[in-house]
Amino acid sequence: MKTVSITEAAAMLLTHDHIIILMHKSPDGDAIGCAYALCYALRKLGKSAQVRCSDPVPEKYGYLTKEVPDQHFTPAYIVSADLAAEQLFGDALQEYTDRVDLCIDHHGSNSGFARYGIIDPSAGACTQIVLRVIEAMEVPIDRYLANAIFTGLSTDTGCFKFSNASSETFRIAAEMIDKGAESAMINRIMFDTKSRARLEIERMALDSVRFYADGQIATVSVTQQMLRQSGADESETEGIASIPRQIEGVRIGITIKEKEDGTFRISMRTTDDVDASAVCAVFGGGGHKAAAGCSVSGTAEEVTRQLVAVSEKFLGESI
Amino acid sequence: MKTVSITEAAAMLLTHDHIIILMHKSPDGDAIGCAYALCYALRKLGKSAQVRCSDPVPEKYGYLTKEVPDQHFTPAYIVSADLAAEQLFGDALQEYTDRVDLCIDHHGSNSGFARYGIIDPSAGACTQIVLRVIEAMEVPIDRYLANAIFTGLSTDTGCFKFSNASSETFRIAAEMIDKGAESAMINRIMFDTKSRARLEIERMALDSVRFYADGQIATVSVTQQMLRQSGADESETEGIASIPRQIEGVRIGITIKEKEDGTFRISMRTTDDVDASAVCAVFGGGGHKAAAGCSVSGTAEEVTRQLVAVSEKFLGESI
Repeated sequence: MKTVSITEAAAMLLTHDHIIILMHKSPDGDAIGCAYALCYALRKLGKSAQVRCSDPVPEKYGYLTKEVPDQHFTPAYIVSADLAAEQLFGDALQEYTDRVDLCIDHHGSNSGFARYGIIDPSAGACTQIVLRVIEAMEVPIDRYLANAIFTGLSTDTGCFKFSNASSETFRIAAEMIDKGAESAMINRIMFDTKSRARLEIERMALDSVRFYADGQIATVSVTQQMLRQSGADESETEGIASIPRQIEGVRIGITIKEKEDGTFRISMRTTDDVDASAVCAVFGGGGHKAAAGCSVSGTAEEVTRQLVAVSEKFLGESI
Repeated sequence: MKTVSITEAAAMLLTHDHIIILMHKSPDGDAIGCAYALCYALRKLGKSAQVRCSDPVPEKYGYLTKEVPDQHFTPAYIVSADLAAEQLFGDALQEYTDRVDLCIDHHGSNSGFARYGIIDPSAGACTQIVLRVIEAMEVPIDRYLANAIFTGLSTDTGCFKFSNASSETFRIAAEMIDKGAESAMINRIMFDTKSRARLEIERMALDSVRFYADGQIATVSVTQQMLRQSGADESETEGIASIPRQIEGVRIGITIKEKEDGTFRISMRTTDDVDASAVCAVFGGGGHKAAAGCSVSGTAEEVTRQLVAVSEKFLGESI
């Protein structure tokens, strides 16, 4: 992958048409914010543009999806945003893994699958980079774009809570609010809205908390049975991953979600002195320093034991 | 009370010495941020200054309190910050209710108890105003002051989640981060740290959720028995007030905390279309539009019934 500047990326987009923008599977607010902002901006320039993803966009992002109706065309230029590696394309986008023309990302671990790319790990959210590209294409930032960019800023930083929310992140958030971003509405949807089913599964999750390594490691479990009993769906378990690390003294918080096929999806959150992406890399996963993930097979007991054993080693070797 | 400008307030502080800064009882992050920032800044100018409060400052604010050791002197000038009314002085500060020289506040409801005052309800946090006063006194903003100001911004806006976090709030947060504010540390202490006792009382609180008015009103109860069983203390129940309003469809979330004397402290959180301070005013309380409080006596059932009945009326008359 050849690294390009914001200006060069903008120039590439300006000279192409029939552009599709790929998101990673299970798209989050930053991926959705990036893709819809880019798509909307490209359409403002009179181009055909379409967002593509292996998974559906959760309904709560309706304020972004509703203004970008589907377009059908043969793709001539392929862009990805917030997409770090081939295995995150998901089933429906497999055909594109080696066909991406331009990659815009903020994951330092980006595997370099694209022809050209901007990778800026200093950006708290990938929408920070996308904003600069849109500005370089001279598309005015209206309320829609402000909302899309703000969605990425807010969701990828835990509502400006984590260390990846830099002064630049706060400054862009201020800019977006001045451009009309409905910050309180977005934050309320993303961080302050729970279905009754979600409330119920959270209660069950609190019941499942277990401690290891003198309370430095905590686990939370979400089983298929808990999902059935609470009536919660997969997407409603999102914030649960932050529960274990919030407990006083916990340096590694591990959320163990049983998938439909019986394997386990692991979300790990760590304090600043433990590298979550390094721990998850042992299991073939990855992510950021304070938040990472992986998939593990086995019985619930085996999986927990393995995760705790590896995590304990990293506690000793902390940065 | 005579309204003064930032410059005039700064001039008043500069011409006086032996200054005490009063906080409201049960001080929160904004009150503490304001008072400690002012006290620290005044000491930097060579003055004797001391923070005073009817209640102790919670331990989690140790990063602010530890650098401002107690000073003993006869007060010659009385300042209050984030203090909206006489009844919030608390028992130990009763002697000062009619002796405040300068009041710095962001509550539109400020009762005007002081001789001079700056009241700016557009400030998401009162530390936004205090920062401007400190700047006007030409005290350089170092890491300590940045941390104190940031603490107010973050805690009074629910970590930049609520509508009172304006672009100005975000911009000042960015400034403070550039001046060295340890934003992630502060946010982690304030929003991402729970004792095991807190975890336990939260689980009990989730159990106590009840719905009224077709799910538009939700209540959560915290009883003395729950406190005893969980081992949680009063201060650990803080964030629980945000639970009921988070539930989908809820426009008025009411948290009913039983106090040691058997009366109830009510915290109300509302969506944008219902004025929480107006509902709480019916019970002699007050606060902000989206977050207010009051105290009510009676049995738990009576109190709940009264609160729900009054709240229902406001649902109909929503703004």
